[in-house]
Amino acid sequence: MCRHSIIIDTDPGQDDALAILLALAHGDALDVLGITAVCGNISVRSTAANALKVLALAGREDVPVYLGAASPLVGGLVTAEELHGAAIMDGWDLPVSSAAPRPEFAADWLIETVLSKPAGTVTICALGPLTNIALAVAKCPEIACRVRELVLMGGASQGGNMNAVAEFNMFVDPHAAARVFSAPIRKTVVSLDVTSRLLLTEHELGRLTMGSGRLAQQVGKLLNLYRNSLMAGAPRALHDPAVIAWLLMPEIFSGRALNVEIETSPGFAYGQTIVDVNGVTGRPANAFWLTDADKGAFYALIGHALSKI
Amino acid sequence: MCRHSIIIDTDPGQDDALAILLALAHGDALDVLGITAVCGNISVRSTAANALKVLALAGREDVPVYLGAASPLVGGLVTAEELHGAAIMDGWDLPVSSAAPRPEFAADWLIETVLSKPAGTVTICALGPLTNIALAVAKCPEIACRVRELVLMGGASQGGNMNAVAEFNMFVDPHAAARVFSAPIRKTVVSLDVTSRLLLTEHELGRLTMGSGRLAQQVGKLLNLYRNSLMAGAPRALHDPAVIAWLLMPEIFSGRALNVEIETSPGFAYGQTIVDVNGVTGRPANAFWLTDADKGAFYALIGHALSKI
Amino acid sequence: MCRHSIIIDTDPGQDDALAILLALAHGDALDVLGITAVCGNISVRSTAANALKVLALAGREDVPVYLGAASPLVGGLVTAEELHGAAIMDGWDLPVSSAAPRPEFAADWLIETVLSKPAGTVTICALGPLTNIALAVAKCPEIACRVRELVLMGGASQGGNMNAVAEFNMFVDPHAAARVFSAPIRKTVVSLDVTSRLLLTEHELGRLTMGSGRLAQQVGKLLNLYRNSLMAGAPRALHDPAVIAWLLMPEIFSGRALNVEIETSPGFAYGQTIVDVNGVTGRPANAFWLTDADKGAFYALIGHALSKI
Amino acid sequence: MCRHSIIIDTDPGQDDALAILLALAHGDALDVLGITAVCGNISVRSTAANALKVLALAGREDVPVYLGAASPLVGGLVTAEELHGAAIMDGWDLPVSSAAPRPEFAADWLIETVLSKPAGTVTICALGPLTNIALAVAKCPEIACRVRELVLMGGASQGGNMNAVAEFNMFVDPHAAARVFSAPIRKTVVSLDVTSRLLLTEHELGRLTMGSGRLAQQVGKLLNLYRNSLMAGAPRALHDPAVIAWLLMPEIFSGRALNVEIETSPGFAYGQTIVDVNGVTGRPANAFWLTDADKGAFYALIGHALSKI
Repeated sequence: MCRHSIIIDTDPGQDDALAILLALAHGDALDVLGITAVCGNISVRSTAANALKVLALAGREDVPVYLGAASPLVGGLVTAEELHGAAIMDGWDLPVSSAAPRPEFAADWLIETVLSKPAGTVTICALGPLTNIALAVAKCPEIACRVRELVLMGGASQGGNMNAVAEFNMFVDPHAAARVFSAPIRKTVVSLDVTSRLLLTEHELGRLTMGSGRLAQQVGKLLNLYRNSLMAGAPRALHDPAVIAWLLMPEIFSGRALNVEIETSPGFAYGQTIVDVNGVTGRPANAFWLTDADKGAFYALIGHALSKI
Repeated sequence: MCRHSIIIDTDPGQDDALAILLALAHGDALDVLGITAVCGNISVRSTAANALKVLALAGREDVPVYLGAASPLVGGLVTAEELHGAAIMDGWDLPVSSAAPRPEFAADWLIETVLSKPAGTVTICALGPLTNIALAVAKCPEIACRVRELVLMGGASQGGNMNAVAEFNMFVDPHAAARVFSAPIRKTVVSLDVTSRLLLTEHELGRLTMGSGRLAQQVGKLLNLYRNSLMAGAPRALHDPAVIAWLLMPEIFSGRALNVEIETSPGFAYGQTIVDVNGVTGRPANAFWLTDADKGAFYALIGHALSKI
Repeated sequence: MCRHSIIIDTDPGQDDALAILLALAHGDALDVLGITAVCGNISVRSTAANALKVLALAGREDVPVYLGAASPLVGGLVTAEELHGAAIMDGWDLPVSSAAPRPEFAADWLIETVLSKPAGTVTICALGPLTNIALAVAKCPEIACRVRELVLMGGASQGGNMNAVAEFNMFVDPHAAARVFSAPIRKTVVSLDVTSRLLLTEHELGRLTMGSGRLAQQVGKLLNLYRNSLMAGAPRALHDPAVIAWLLMPEIFSGRALNVEIETSPGFAYGQTIVDVNGVTGRPANAFWLTDADKGAFYALIGHALSKI
Repeated sequence: MCRHSIIIDTDPGQDDALAILLALAHGDALDVLGITAVCGNISVRSTAANALKVLALAGREDVPVYLGAASPLVGGLVTAEELHGAAIMDGWDLPVSSAAPRPEFAADWLIETVLSKPAGTVTICALGPLTNIALAVAKCPEIACRVRELVLMGGASQGGNMNAVAEFNMFVDPHAAARVFSAPIRKTVVSLDVTSRLLLTEHELGRLTMGSGRLAQQVGKLLNLYRNSLMAGAPRALHDPAVIAWLLMPEIFSGRALNVEIETSPGFAYGQTIVDVNGVTGRPANAFWLTDADKGAFYALIGHALSKI
């Protein structure tokens, strides 16, 4: 497998942190060009600070971090703090980073980077709301065809986690999602459909945090917080690392090409990814929608990564 | 099992016809008080005429038929003819009925019947758009609590057949559906989720129409037309008979209580049944949603019924 | 002028009461066949009770009153009590009526009456939400072409009173309004555009309640309550009597034929009458929209009526 | 009056051209820092080319032109060509400009310019859809409070020109408008409410193009095309110059502060400016909404400007 150049757009979030670590652990396969922070779970200043802490934890403060959008494309920001309580902010008493976000705006740096690299070589991993990606495409539509692939965590076709049918990242900024899904960019979607098959239980948690090193302890702490932030003790889907796993081991996933649109109108379906699973609409496929994953292989991949860092 | 008094609200439709025959074949268990016709697949005059033909075929012209709503509650009528072609009108060259629809309006007769029978004894089987039921509840909200159960074919939580997420009966009159789902009436929902597990293939078709009698031939003709009306040769879900099957053999189905709302706003989700499968919204359960069925037992039930008539 | 047969569909409400009195005072020109009550400002039982009290006040308990819809066509009921406070319920300590609502459902009686009279001779005056009218048209579409005219109070093209753009009667049941506006029934609309030109100030109030009789005192009390129910002392539009005034003196109004649609989707425009004042849409005119009225003549008409009863 | 520094964001369009000329003619009062082009009436490349031609016509190729958004913030582009026919492209056979758009992205240059000038000194004149302004605010929310004023042409509270209630600029990109109206930026709105009082008739056309110079001829040609592009011979509102006129002679306008929201949902009200003219919603005023203008003074101002260039 040739090495991917990737940009991680993210709103850490404990599972974002694990996704970043997973990517960094596979330096042979993935070259993390930079991290762009976006508002989502928490404010963009906090997500950028968290990203810097994760990089410090991994000893990779050379990876640049950029501040992106401070609010969604159209509406106001609803943070996950209201959803999850303050817990989402806990556990970030990681070693303070000596680095700071770079001065450039995230979407601008993303555009420049995609334009400066050979066409078809940069992959964008979007772990949060798609605001930064939408702003980049709005400013420079040409990048859509130059990106190798946009792999994004978001959406659901079988039940949501913010309302009956919408997933958090899409719900927070459905307008950005609508813009991105209508752009001619190759997309792979890691939705709740697949992450709900990757539940983090006591069993996986124990195996991932077996190690005695500092990193294992820190990650264990984050994952414990993550797992308990919704409902103590219950298994919880591990969303964002699946985006990185798709790049490393696509063979453990299954999926299909189909049409996805985003509902932006107020109402019961606000923020829903409207997935044409039955091919009823006649609209062309615009995304590769993952439907299943091998859970054992997925957690083995993560465990292996943590032991490597 | 005690005998159910049922009202069949319907827009035949070949699979509606089979549902009616299935009910009539089980006179020991189901007492068909009457049939109320509603616009849907075709105009209400045509659906009433078809219902009369089915009754004539079964030698049951004693069952009264009532004309109901000629158009949806709020918007204009979109018939399935546009969807299916004229095929939906074919095959109804059944023996002409000597009966005619009764003079009373369907919703009025339904109200009277429910009020005149002991509370909790009348079951409504809704095989088409819910316009008649909504009009009945609008005029006389008291019936909601007197009905034993409303078993309805409609909706989908995993992909639609009219747009990406909406099923035909809900799409044709989402406003009526919204009215009915908000009424305090006990509801069991036979959605595409379950009927897509009851596909009618060459195999089932052959078995159902093995008999040499006139009825078997007529039913065979209808089912052939039904099966080929969307795409020749492809298996097709058999929707409406599952409503009757639920009354006869609930043990072959599985399902769960959850909240269902109807999207009535224009947009990608128009007509969708918004099903809170993950219990995210906190809204109380207002329907029993069937999720699976034993296909073998279902077709055995139908085959047995056809041999009995 | 030949005599009109009218049905008053209403949710009294103090200005509804004045409209009823205005109609009764002109028995030479208007034959009030009956009053159909609808939920709106308050529950349908209360609006029917209020209608009976107004008839008793006028010594016209021979006019039948019918109970109509207890809730809007699709959604739940939002009463004006939440808007206006309990004030809307005050002042109805009128002489108790010895009459009771008739047993028939309002929409059914309306249909029968329209069908039993010569085509083109019955005018419907709708002073509240259009639920009853929508139910009548849903059950019996034929009445649309038999009604002489539907004169309705509702809507606004230049600012609303429930949200920025929607008027109360349309906001309470926009789905019923949508159904009625799409029916081929001749419609004249008395919107806020025209009633806002008929403000009830101290001056008009004084003149209307000059009389010393019991009726004048009762009406004075109602109008005082009406005027002060929103903001003490401020002039307030007198809506519903303008519907009756249109029948009695159309020459004091001006207006034009244009297209009106009803917004039923949630959002800023929920319940708005979308009036194509510039003829942009190409949709055919479906209503005669009143735009102005002679205020002096209007109040003279009312004053004269009160002196006659 | 102190001199305003202004940025003109525009999609010329013949009336945009006249607005630009009006601004340039008043160099004593207005310092045109630059022109940012946006898609709207036509593609952004064409609007930028047209802006350059207007500058060449005025002998002001020193004013920089920047390319902005090539499509609306969320949805696809609907150009006025479909609305107006190709006529909107005619008449631009003006002297070819020797200048080209500058390399910087319009929104970026706008941000830099606002940040580099003293706070409260730069006025933005938005003559087209608000896409560029929304992108600027999305990237750098701080500019909202540094801008002196955003004067925009768009919206309507008394009837639209794209659908029954929506005006072109808002209809083309309602999401951008929603973003801008929710930003804490001081806004003055020149809507159809006021421009419909500034109709360009034969009379005004004659007076504006009396001059014999080259400029007068060119402007006369543009205005003739503009006037005839909708309906030959009919008077037509002259929209965009009113934005500049507001800066030069605010005393000829009247208006009031009120709340404006933008409808972004599909449906009859798509793109409508929801103006709370009656103060019903309780939402705070977020715009100064012009309601009337002195037509004579307005055309005198334009005539005087044309004679000066």
